[in-house]
Amino acid sequence: MIHQTTNWLMNVVELIATKRDGGRLEPEQIKNVVDGFSGEGVPDYQMAALAMAIWFNGMDHEEVVALTRSMLHSGKVFSWQGINRRVVDKHSTGGIGDKVSIVLAPLLAAAGFAVPMISGRGLGATGGTLDKLESIPGFQVDMSMEQIRRQVEETGCVIASAGPEIAPADRRMYALRDVTATVASVPLITASILSKKLAEGLDALVLDVKFGSGAFMKSRESARELAVSLVDVASELGLTASALLTDMNQPLGRMVGNSCEVNESLDVLKGKGPDDLRELTIELAFEVVRMAGEKDEATGEKDEATSRARIASLLDGGEAMECFERMVAAQGGRLSGPLPCAPVQPLLADRDGWIAITDAEQMGWAVIDMGGGRKSLEDPLDHSTGLEILVRVGDQVEKGQPLVNVFCRTAQFATIERRLRSAIPIVDEPVAALPLIGDRIRPDSC
Amino acid sequence: MIHQTTNWLMNVVELIATKRDGGRLEPEQIKNVVDGFSGEGVPDYQMAALAMAIWFNGMDHEEVVALTRSMLHSGKVFSWQGINRRVVDKHSTGGIGDKVSIVLAPLLAAAGFAVPMISGRGLGATGGTLDKLESIPGFQVDMSMEQIRRQVEETGCVIASAGPEIAPADRRMYALRDVTATVASVPLITASILSKKLAEGLDALVLDVKFGSGAFMKSRESARELAVSLVDVASELGLTASALLTDMNQPLGRMVGNSCEVNESLDVLKGKGPDDLRELTIELAFEVVRMAGEKDEATGEKDEATSRARIASLLDGGEAMECFERMVAAQGGRLSGPLPCAPVQPLLADRDGWIAITDAEQMGWAVIDMGGGRKSLEDPLDHSTGLEILVRVGDQVEKGQPLVNVFCRTAQFATIERRLRSAIPIVDEPVAALPLIGDRIRPDSC
Repeated sequence: MIHQTTNWLMNVVELIATKRDGGRLEPEQIKNVVDGFSGEGVPDYQMAALAMAIWFNGMDHEEVVALTRSMLHSGKVFSWQGINRRVVDKHSTGGIGDKVSIVLAPLLAAAGFAVPMISGRGLGATGGTLDKLESIPGFQVDMSMEQIRRQVEETGCVIASAGPEIAPADRRMYALRDVTATVASVPLITASILSKKLAEGLDALVLDVKFGSGAFMKSRESARELAVSLVDVASELGLTASALLTDMNQPLGRMVGNSCEVNESLDVLKGKGPDDLRELTIELAFEVVRMAGEKDEATGEKDEATSRARIASLLDGGEAMECFERMVAAQGGRLSGPLPCAPVQPLLADRDGWIAITDAEQMGWAVIDMGGGRKSLEDPLDHSTGLEILVRVGDQVEKGQPLVNVFCRTAQFATIERRLRSAIPIVDEPVAALPLIGDRIRPDSC
Repeated sequence: MIHQTTNWLMNVVELIATKRDGGRLEPEQIKNVVDGFSGEGVPDYQMAALAMAIWFNGMDHEEVVALTRSMLHSGKVFSWQGINRRVVDKHSTGGIGDKVSIVLAPLLAAAGFAVPMISGRGLGATGGTLDKLESIPGFQVDMSMEQIRRQVEETGCVIASAGPEIAPADRRMYALRDVTATVASVPLITASILSKKLAEGLDALVLDVKFGSGAFMKSRESARELAVSLVDVASELGLTASALLTDMNQPLGRMVGNSCEVNESLDVLKGKGPDDLRELTIELAFEVVRMAGEKDEATGEKDEATSRARIASLLDGGEAMECFERMVAAQGGRLSGPLPCAPVQPLLADRDGWIAITDAEQMGWAVIDMGGGRKSLEDPLDHSTGLEILVRVGDQVEKGQPLVNVFCRTAQFATIERRLRSAIPIVDEPVAALPLIGDRIRPDSC
């Protein structure tokens, strides 16, 4: 219930009215609201109204910086004193089949970085890195800040959940936005992502901002807007960051689903795996190396081709896989070869033609339909289900040719077949392939 | 705290997103949200986000009708079976010095109507009819629906507070809007006002929609928009209504403050009092008589001048005062002559000139500064303080002439003098007087 009107509530109502009317909030005002929201001074209903006013009227650079800083300081920040490595991380805005984190964290560790990767669970149609890693028997993602620090010291990398000490205001704010239709706001997304990443105490952050049917941002323009906001605000707060805009109109790699995405990650860590996944992983690692080089001439690789080749060699030579195995062991995981998946059934092309733009989001929902993701928070996962997408946009196919291998219980196939067919349309005319990596957004391009 | 994401929350979040994106909600969806909000299904934070989305994107006629109907049916409706009078009421959007209700309720009772007037307390800078009437020793405003019904049967009129059975969804919604900067929304104001008035089970309703410095709606255009919405939605829901647009750039009558407004009301009930207050009271009564006449030819006064004269005669002949005295006695009030006011001190003109447009809202805040209104809900009132405004816009004044008689404790005078002076600017050039009554909005003008 609403409390009686107090002076404090009335101060907040003036801030809401300011934002509602298109005005700007002072950094001190934003700090007071976030502090009040973290405590009990600002109730959910006032924050919901403010979030909706921000959804409509946005925030300027200084406001987003203040919001990010306030949310960051609602919790603790990792200290890496005594660790003799540059501390780096990657954040992806999420996409279908995006298992880059599973490969990139150990790859960067193999390259000499410290990688305290705070990751998340499935959201909407997209899977979550933590859910995928929990396909590995025994793998633990809930760790204290001290446990995370110790593991980074010992193995170079960790992939864990955000505990209650990491930006708790963001945790509460995100839960509120999720149920008040205020998620899709560039200022609020920026503050949410960066408050958690800044809490990691990083030297450099690379952002993978995805656009297309399987991404949160459907258009390249909106992805660019978010990428610029992220890089710009991170820089203002002292964190070197850059972003790649990448295409999510088709799944990344071939595998979608928990166990089968881990298996595909193992392929890449063995120097194999699909080209697009390997290429994007190397490009994101390259950005990190480049940024670290900017900060310290001594460690920078000046020749881009050499730098990329060195990164690739860490996959091909097994060093990244060694780091992965150390990380899995440190987090309690027991892994001996590929994980078991549900029985496979092929979905066959029902006509000749070319693969048109796919609806990657629908492929994500198909996995959720098979129990590989959650429809509500309490749902248990079936990690063994998934899809192997055998075709890419622009491929020519013949009737009867397999389009997808579906890992599922036999009875599930019929329930998702229609969804999958409409997600992979076959047309009469040739279709151009999609380039994976679009623009790069670096601080100087803001 | 936010609950876990449930399907019900997610259904509401889709409705919020629809309104956020400029879409329209179905009547059934609006009913479900209001019902859920009245119960525990829709939490405050979702309603706050929806209210803000409505603030930005509005509602169409059918949506406002559905919202009003749903809020009405969250509570009970008066039944007047067995009462052999037309049941009528007036609602004012509120203004400085607006004591019309105190005169109009007994005047309409004297004219043969039943008047179950549900009224409110002070809000923002404006006083509340209930607060004013509580200046009368013993006067009770908290009554059950059965008590209200019985008093209307016995005395013809009542002025009471809205109990918990009258549109409880509106009560909760209003408290939420008050602290989330979503008050100033024509669809939400319309539903709030009409859900309560429809609960009175009326045959006709006259609306006094004020515009200007002392009103909620600062511009005539926004007041017109609200008036049209109110008349239009009331008609759709079977309630005959009309509205007067009236000027609130200066106080109505001369008195502002609780006891002194009751005293001025007594003057009007004796056939005296300031012209503007008497005129507006008669015009509002005339509208009621006219609407009642439209519904039943037998009771209609066809000649407007005759109708107004008959209404005036009920003030001049003492019949309205008799009804007032019966109402006061029935509600426990003890009244023998004018109420005592605090000692008087004059505010003198500091120069020659003409009275320019006044800031009526500041006069309301001056009374609140003197304890005549609340800054927070728990504040006790000093009913004895107030202002007698001795000049009107366009008056020519001389230096040293009294502008305002201030009823206050001696020490208070200094604290409000500056506020009052800036609220009553004196300029060098003549200023035109302000007409009191602007347009009339009747169903056919919608």
